[in-house]
Amino acid sequence: MLFKGGGLPHESLALQEKLFGAGPDYNFMTRIERFKNSLVRVQHFIRCCARYNLHDHADKKWFEGVAFPNEVSVLGPHSGMFIPTLKEQGSEEQIQKWVPQAEKHQIMGTYIQTELGHGTFVRGLETTATYDPKTEEFILNSPTLTSIKWWPGGLGRTCNFGIVMALLYIDGKNYGMHPFVVQLRSLKTHEPLPGLTMGDIGPKFGFDTVDNGYLQFNHFGIPRENMLMKYCQVLKNGTYTKQTRNPKFSYGAMIFVRSMVVYEVAGQGLAKACTIAIRYSAIRRQSELKKSRPEPQILDYQTQQYKLFPLLALAYAVWFTGVRMKEIYFMVNNEIKQGHTERLPELHAISSGLKAFTTSMASWGIERCRLACGGHGYSAASGLPKIYVNATGGCTYEGENTVMLLQCARFLMNIYGGVKNGRRPSGSVNYLGERISSRCTLTSEFTLKSLADAFKHRAARMIKEASERLNRLQASGNDPEDSWNLNSVVLTKAAEAHCHYYMVLVFESVVESVEDNCVKDILRQLCQLLALCGIQENSGDFIQDGFLNNDQLELVKQKQLSLLSEIRPNAVLLVDAFEFHDVQLGSILGRFDGNVYENLFKWAKKTPLNKPEDLIHRLLR
Amino acid sequence: MLFKGGGLPHESLALQEKLFGAGPDYNFMTRIERFKNSLVRVQHFIRCCARYNLHDHADKKWFEGVAFPNEVSVLGPHSGMFIPTLKEQGSEEQIQKWVPQAEKHQIMGTYIQTELGHGTFVRGLETTATYDPKTEEFILNSPTLTSIKWWPGGLGRTCNFGIVMALLYIDGKNYGMHPFVVQLRSLKTHEPLPGLTMGDIGPKFGFDTVDNGYLQFNHFGIPRENMLMKYCQVLKNGTYTKQTRNPKFSYGAMIFVRSMVVYEVAGQGLAKACTIAIRYSAIRRQSELKKSRPEPQILDYQTQQYKLFPLLALAYAVWFTGVRMKEIYFMVNNEIKQGHTERLPELHAISSGLKAFTTSMASWGIERCRLACGGHGYSAASGLPKIYVNATGGCTYEGENTVMLLQCARFLMNIYGGVKNGRRPSGSVNYLGERISSRCTLTSEFTLKSLADAFKHRAARMIKEASERLNRLQASGNDPEDSWNLNSVVLTKAAEAHCHYYMVLVFESVVESVEDNCVKDILRQLCQLLALCGIQENSGDFIQDGFLNNDQLELVKQKQLSLLSEIRPNAVLLVDAFEFHDVQLGSILGRFDGNVYENLFKWAKKTPLNKPEDLIHRLLR
Repeated sequence: MLFKGGGLPHESLALQEKLFGAGPDYNFMTRIERFKNSLVRVQHFIRCCARYNLHDHADKKWFEGVAFPNEVSVLGPHSGMFIPTLKEQGSEEQIQKWVPQAEKHQIMGTYIQTELGHGTFVRGLETTATYDPKTEEFILNSPTLTSIKWWPGGLGRTCNFGIVMALLYIDGKNYGMHPFVVQLRSLKTHEPLPGLTMGDIGPKFGFDTVDNGYLQFNHFGIPRENMLMKYCQVLKNGTYTKQTRNPKFSYGAMIFVRSMVVYEVAGQGLAKACTIAIRYSAIRRQSELKKSRPEPQILDYQTQQYKLFPLLALAYAVWFTGVRMKEIYFMVNNEIKQGHTERLPELHAISSGLKAFTTSMASWGIERCRLACGGHGYSAASGLPKIYVNATGGCTYEGENTVMLLQCARFLMNIYGGVKNGRRPSGSVNYLGERISSRCTLTSEFTLKSLADAFKHRAARMIKEASERLNRLQASGNDPEDSWNLNSVVLTKAAEAHCHYYMVLVFESVVESVEDNCVKDILRQLCQLLALCGIQENSGDFIQDGFLNNDQLELVKQKQLSLLSEIRPNAVLLVDAFEFHDVQLGSILGRFDGNVYENLFKWAKKTPLNKPEDLIHRLLR
Repeated sequence: MLFKGGGLPHESLALQEKLFGAGPDYNFMTRIERFKNSLVRVQHFIRCCARYNLHDHADKKWFEGVAFPNEVSVLGPHSGMFIPTLKEQGSEEQIQKWVPQAEKHQIMGTYIQTELGHGTFVRGLETTATYDPKTEEFILNSPTLTSIKWWPGGLGRTCNFGIVMALLYIDGKNYGMHPFVVQLRSLKTHEPLPGLTMGDIGPKFGFDTVDNGYLQFNHFGIPRENMLMKYCQVLKNGTYTKQTRNPKFSYGAMIFVRSMVVYEVAGQGLAKACTIAIRYSAIRRQSELKKSRPEPQILDYQTQQYKLFPLLALAYAVWFTGVRMKEIYFMVNNEIKQGHTERLPELHAISSGLKAFTTSMASWGIERCRLACGGHGYSAASGLPKIYVNATGGCTYEGENTVMLLQCARFLMNIYGGVKNGRRPSGSVNYLGERISSRCTLTSEFTLKSLADAFKHRAARMIKEASERLNRLQASGNDPEDSWNLNSVVLTKAAEAHCHYYMVLVFESVVESVEDNCVKDILRQLCQLLALCGIQENSGDFIQDGFLNNDQLELVKQKQLSLLSEIRPNAVLLVDAFEFHDVQLGSILGRFDGNVYENLFKWAKKTPLNKPEDLIHRLLR
């Protein structure tokens, strides 16, 4: 109950639906079969939403976790991007027109922004929407090869509507990027409308169940009323008007999705991988620790513990951080509704930074879990390849990670600059207003406070140095843009240090809030391990200004190793606590009942390559 | 010509064969189609070997690199394991009987060792071969579920012969592991012989073109003459005899394969990934460095250079190290043929260590290249997912990497123990006989000598400390096995430090050997970058005993960043120098002509999901 709280009832409901998990194993299907199978489950999911009255986003998410384990369905862009953007950017009239149809799935939509030659940098997009006052239409066009819309999920075969981001032109003047509602396919035949060239962009590393698509406009007209007009309007005669009200929260959907990625993609993905690898390591026996004794569980090897327990600690840390992100999102969202937008930049910065930091850490972590399972980890039966290929997508979508870290760094530089001008920061960056302490309080006790302080010191020092280096680069004659670029590696590292501190702090606060002393002790060990591994892997950062000395670093190493033995007896329980059902793990190695070998054998026998096929025989003669 | 030397003629021959690269794109095929397509190419490759008189292993490898780009064919286990083991372990009579048939591909064989429950630890295998003097047969049996043979390549559907490793029992006595030649399938019908349960083990992360298989023996009899009898014999009456001659070189094949993995899997895999990512980064434009200027090539961003150039340096380093490994292998092999086996333990240790070190580094590197390509890197069109899933297998096959590092560490501990007892080490470990210098000679010039010395210092110190820690653990009452396990994390790190030093040293020696001053300067920059990144990523190791101080570490960071700008103008040339043909890269992003976007669009249109399918339409209505 530590993790899923209110989610469990919805998971249980979903697990009762026979259709989910029915049919052949995902791993035995072709891409087209995977896609179709997912569509069947999408339809059933829609029926279930009606039957069980699922409306709340979080409730649906728990349900989807069972319906679409370790994969993404075409519902994602529809409910996560299309509908929220309609609600945020549409006028009342527009919301009334499209949202009810979309919520009843009478129309299926996606969000169409990125282009073949343009990704995270929105201002680089080339698609045009030119207003023609004679026909009162916007003419959408793809003027270049690189302007072809590329990647939107569900665009390839599924969606019949989309919100298209395009440059608005009126009378030859460019008014910048605006959102347009576009019907893409006939509601009768499902054929693309004339003037549109559309299709699927082809197979990817993962995401087989989603038809990411392309879309080329050939002077395609849409009614004037289809520009989303909450903040900007184009009148019949071509007059352009703009609300004075600050549309800052128009990037609320983006912040929401990034916050969710921390929790759902990074947190849950790594937690599943740890569950599989740690359970399997308690089943698998290998080599010998003592001559003529039975082969030990591989979880008893120090090297295996050293691979997996820091990842287990990371999984807990990322999960808790994801929960915290969600809480902060809803809190700031409420503040904004009451007109207070002060904390929006901070929320934007920390959600960008943590999205990047946690997806990178979790992705590598999932792969390490797979590698820790040896040969069987490489088999699709482990479930780990599928978890990895879907999680690693999170490093790129919703903002490429390096760009995200630089956005976070930009905020940190602003705050630090403000501090030097006497402003007092608050929230997650309040520590930048403190004097950087050079007194390290780390002793062999390794209290969580002292560990968090070490990360605070590191982050503060690196942010300060990045800021000073930026100033030096400018002072020596570089213009601001070149200085920023020549400092960008240092800036990304400063942003990572800030996010790392944030994560340690969240974990510490969770440990402090736990009342059961036994649970508290175990979680404290995990939190210590997380922090100590962070210090060791980045020891240069901690030792460089003399904050940590060599003797302390030696203590850090020793404590890490002793924690491995202390965590060992609880390791399997700590992953069982995530409460993933076998359907959600999709892994033979991670089965709750531990019956690994028998089921690997059964599974292998069912693989399509084992069906007799004359051609193979003929080829071999 | 820097890299391929004598290999280019064979690549050119292979590139003329229309069948290679014919048919649909690999990425559009189902697993069964991939497997069949590979079999077709296998047959054509066999015809080509005859036509072009390809016999030499290296010549064939260059040819295979074109015939089977970034994948493994069923020929691998046949020519890399089955035939060599016959030659090494068979009697003259046995070699005469089977090798000619195998070389003409009249029989196709594989090497059958690992079991469902047993991998790298050979002594744990459970399959039995019990001699029956009445029938003069060995009865092969799989006594348990975990003893089912699992993983051998080509076993699933292709091979009709195999060399099976099994425990020899005579008259109730266990004589340990021995190799047996076993016919698996009818040469007429290709059906498995009675008494054998066989098949494919199911889909994996990669290796779709290989039918890794399972094999369960049900009291299956083979003639006495089928035990490979070069070193051990079982006479008709069941008498067991063993040659006194040291069969040390029986693990020659293993060393050979590991040496090849450094070169072919790690070196070439990373070089290909760098080629793709660096070429694409010179095509892709994104964001803005200066307001209102065209979007720059992403290769001009410092963060992108910081991602890719250290990997480029690593690719060069691993490639050179792989070439050196091959040279040493053949040298030691010749020595052994003349009766000198002194250098075999060293060769075994360094090939184990480097196999682990380079496959781990290169695998992460390939994934980093993919991530550096943003969204399009995630598309199968980038070719990077295929390169990664096949290369990462190298972390597990031919010995799991952690086990390999511990084997290397075992050797290092022996050598270091010998030094303390007055013995003088030679070869790659001769530095362990030197006094560890505490004088760091690193200055802002960063000569390659001073950089290599820093890695030498680090390795020597870590090996010394690992040895002393092992002694302390034993002295405090732990038995040798527990001490080893409690020290194993420290031991793997010491082994990595040794391999890292070896790699830097090889790179340095290559730079010194180059005569063209311009090439030498460019390679020196790459070697510096490799070493400096190694120092920074492991800065704790270098700073801990005061060898490097904080000022030097700061210099290291600055020099790293300035090297990025220095390497930038040569980056594309440095990957072109690998001379990979587009067929070998299998990547639209990495195309030599740079025509990325047009070909992405063409490719996407061909994806099978774009074929009209009624079912999809019906599902969507």
